[in-house]
Amino acid sequence: MSAPESTARVEAFSDGVFAIAITLLILEIRVPHAEHGLWAGLLALWPSYIAFLQSFVVILIMWVSHHELLQMVRGVSYPFFFANGLLLLTITFVPFPTAILAAHLGTPEAKVAVAFYCGTFVVNALVWNLLFWTIVRGGLVRPEISADTIAGVRKAYYAGPLVYLLATVVALFQPIVGLLINVSLWVVWVRLGYRSEGKVREREDFSLPRTRG
Amino acid sequence: MSAPESTARVEAFSDGVFAIAITLLILEIRVPHAEHGLWAGLLALWPSYIAFLQSFVVILIMWVSHHELLQMVRGVSYPFFFANGLLLLTITFVPFPTAILAAHLGTPEAKVAVAFYCGTFVVNALVWNLLFWTIVRGGLVRPEISADTIAGVRKAYYAGPLVYLLATVVALFQPIVGLLINVSLWVVWVRLGYRSEGKVREREDFSLPRTRG
Amino acid sequence: MSAPESTARVEAFSDGVFAIAITLLILEIRVPHAEHGLWAGLLALWPSYIAFLQSFVVILIMWVSHHELLQMVRGVSYPFFFANGLLLLTITFVPFPTAILAAHLGTPEAKVAVAFYCGTFVVNALVWNLLFWTIVRGGLVRPEISADTIAGVRKAYYAGPLVYLLATVVALFQPIVGLLINVSLWVVWVRLGYRSEGKVREREDFSLPRTRG
Amino acid sequence: MSAPESTARVEAFSDGVFAIAITLLILEIRVPHAEHGLWAGLLALWPSYIAFLQSFVVILIMWVSHHELLQMVRGVSYPFFFANGLLLLTITFVPFPTAILAAHLGTPEAKVAVAFYCGTFVVNALVWNLLFWTIVRGGLVRPEISADTIAGVRKAYYAGPLVYLLATVVALFQPIVGLLINVSLWVVWVRLGYRSEGKVREREDFSLPRTRG
Repeated sequence: MSAPESTARVEAFSDGVFAIAITLLILEIRVPHAEHGLWAGLLALWPSYIAFLQSFVVILIMWVSHHELLQMVRGVSYPFFFANGLLLLTITFVPFPTAILAAHLGTPEAKVAVAFYCGTFVVNALVWNLLFWTIVRGGLVRPEISADTIAGVRKAYYAGPLVYLLATVVALFQPIVGLLINVSLWVVWVRLGYRSEGKVREREDFSLPRTRG
Repeated sequence: MSAPESTARVEAFSDGVFAIAITLLILEIRVPHAEHGLWAGLLALWPSYIAFLQSFVVILIMWVSHHELLQMVRGVSYPFFFANGLLLLTITFVPFPTAILAAHLGTPEAKVAVAFYCGTFVVNALVWNLLFWTIVRGGLVRPEISADTIAGVRKAYYAGPLVYLLATVVALFQPIVGLLINVSLWVVWVRLGYRSEGKVREREDFSLPRTRG
Repeated sequence: MSAPESTARVEAFSDGVFAIAITLLILEIRVPHAEHGLWAGLLALWPSYIAFLQSFVVILIMWVSHHELLQMVRGVSYPFFFANGLLLLTITFVPFPTAILAAHLGTPEAKVAVAFYCGTFVVNALVWNLLFWTIVRGGLVRPEISADTIAGVRKAYYAGPLVYLLATVVALFQPIVGLLINVSLWVVWVRLGYRSEGKVREREDFSLPRTRG
Repeated sequence: MSAPESTARVEAFSDGVFAIAITLLILEIRVPHAEHGLWAGLLALWPSYIAFLQSFVVILIMWVSHHELLQMVRGVSYPFFFANGLLLLTITFVPFPTAILAAHLGTPEAKVAVAFYCGTFVVNALVWNLLFWTIVRGGLVRPEISADTIAGVRKAYYAGPLVYLLATVVALFQPIVGLLINVSLWVVWVRLGYRSEGKVREREDFSLPRTRG
């Protein structure tokens, strides 16, 4: 059986897209009008700051998750390329719902804006599942990763779309609550990361070869 | 005979350009006016979503193709640098016809917009041929790549400009059909990729050294 | 004890964010109105040039500092990922206060604009301290780095928030002086860099293994 | 004597900045008004296409030159970091004079626009000299590079600011001629590149160790 290709270039490309998407977020915060004074103008941008912070942290966490996920992978395949590409599509899309959120969080349209924002992440969370499925079905998981670890990650990945869907529906009635559910997912992702880091550590104790040094 | 230089830095630069071009696409989708409600405003952006999706997938496929192509290459030369640079020029140009497409797909000017969009890819497809020609003529193909593989890739590359030209001409009369021909090329490129992946796999069975590990 | 993970991918991602943030700064300088002639329009943009130059140099220095800091680190941990992410947040934010500075440096609102600009770097300097604390507390410092070197870096890091806070307060009364304090910090950071370079050189004399070649 | 640090991370950062600056150029070409038809609108953008093409090729050539230059370098120093950073500053600045050129090439202000554009490259060419001086004075040139090669590169670098200054002065009277001088420099840089490539090839024939594989 031929060895699958290394993940190096797909990681470099993905890192580039994550880095650019996270940095473009700031372009959505525009210089405020200062007719009531610059302090007032800067303060009035609070929805932009919230939207920026929320999206920055989410993309950062997803970059870390992507990093963790690729450490479980022993190589790449063609379907993996496209599932990963689809994931990157949902990441590069984030600045748009972020701008919508920033423009409408302080208005009566906040319900629609938050629902649209959360809905974007329903799609994103589904694509994470697709990517994971592609990895597992394509036999790309490193042999030293246990079935238990895979089952644990899968369970966490299943939870994603459901919680984001809940946030979307709730946002249509209570936008602030919808947004808070979204924020609460930071904790889920970070804890998932810690758990998989634990697994990776264990793996390293067996002195297994690493793709990158 | 001196060994040609490794492809590492040209890949890193190209990856950067592909990653940025694909991520800048989202900047063309602007926050909609919400005078008829935000949902209505978001729905009215459908041409932007189509243009974004189409260009994202095309750039993604081209990145994968570029990746595949460089795996056939044993080194770089000065003409290769500039042919590759010209290719990157046509990639960085994509956000502009994408914005044209988004702005005019739902208007009577759709014919011009789709023709301009498809015409951009006629040029792009010609430059792919130039790059491939530079590689083959410059003796940069890895020795283990068979003449059959090269002939297969060349045939596929020849088809590109012709199909895009067809799409451009058709678009002037039937913009939707022109756009659909463009979309149908996704399949061509992806299949070409699968085929060359097969060749690369075969090559690896001979345990040849790889530029990147 | 298991070896901590290499810093390679976190460096690549951070480099990407630094490179993008520093390059986006130019987007804030817009083509001037030329009703009084183009030379006059170009000259009237002087606050934009100052803001661009100031922010470019600061981000450049911080990239170098980040580089130096990561050379003291033997690996990464999960808290490190997030402290580093928070640092990147404050870096990607820079184009916004830069635009504020450019828009208001020549107006009566200059006080607010400079204070906001300097205030941003108070937060940034605090996050540098957090990152350094995460590294030291997480046991990520290379064993060959002496306690003296660590104490020296920490002292310099402590000074950052205080000087930026001073600049912020002064700016509320004398914006130009506030800005000049900010500029004077270039010297501090650069000298800090030189000092740590000296230490790194010493380290290399012991022929220690390097993460990157 | 301790070995100077490898150029790997400074190359990665520089590549990022070059790649982003070259890709941002397209953002300056805006969707045209189509009141006289979209074809007419697209045609009226001819100054934007010329400015885009000119700046794209110049940045591409400079990226290749940077690449060639760093192959002559055996390591980096702290002054090198800042001279390189200053060079990157002049590269990231390019989208601004490009936008000025695009906005005014077809107007009576073309003289000022072309002179400003060319003047930018006077500064850029001076910084190339500074960077080269930093390398030579800092003892960072690889020992196998001959004094002849260094003298040849220096001569070419000296020519840069003079020709760009000529282009700037000429542009104030004959903008088209100024721009053509600018274009003619493509040839100079490319030939310089070929020449230094020849030198690098020779060097490789001695089977010297390479920083990057």
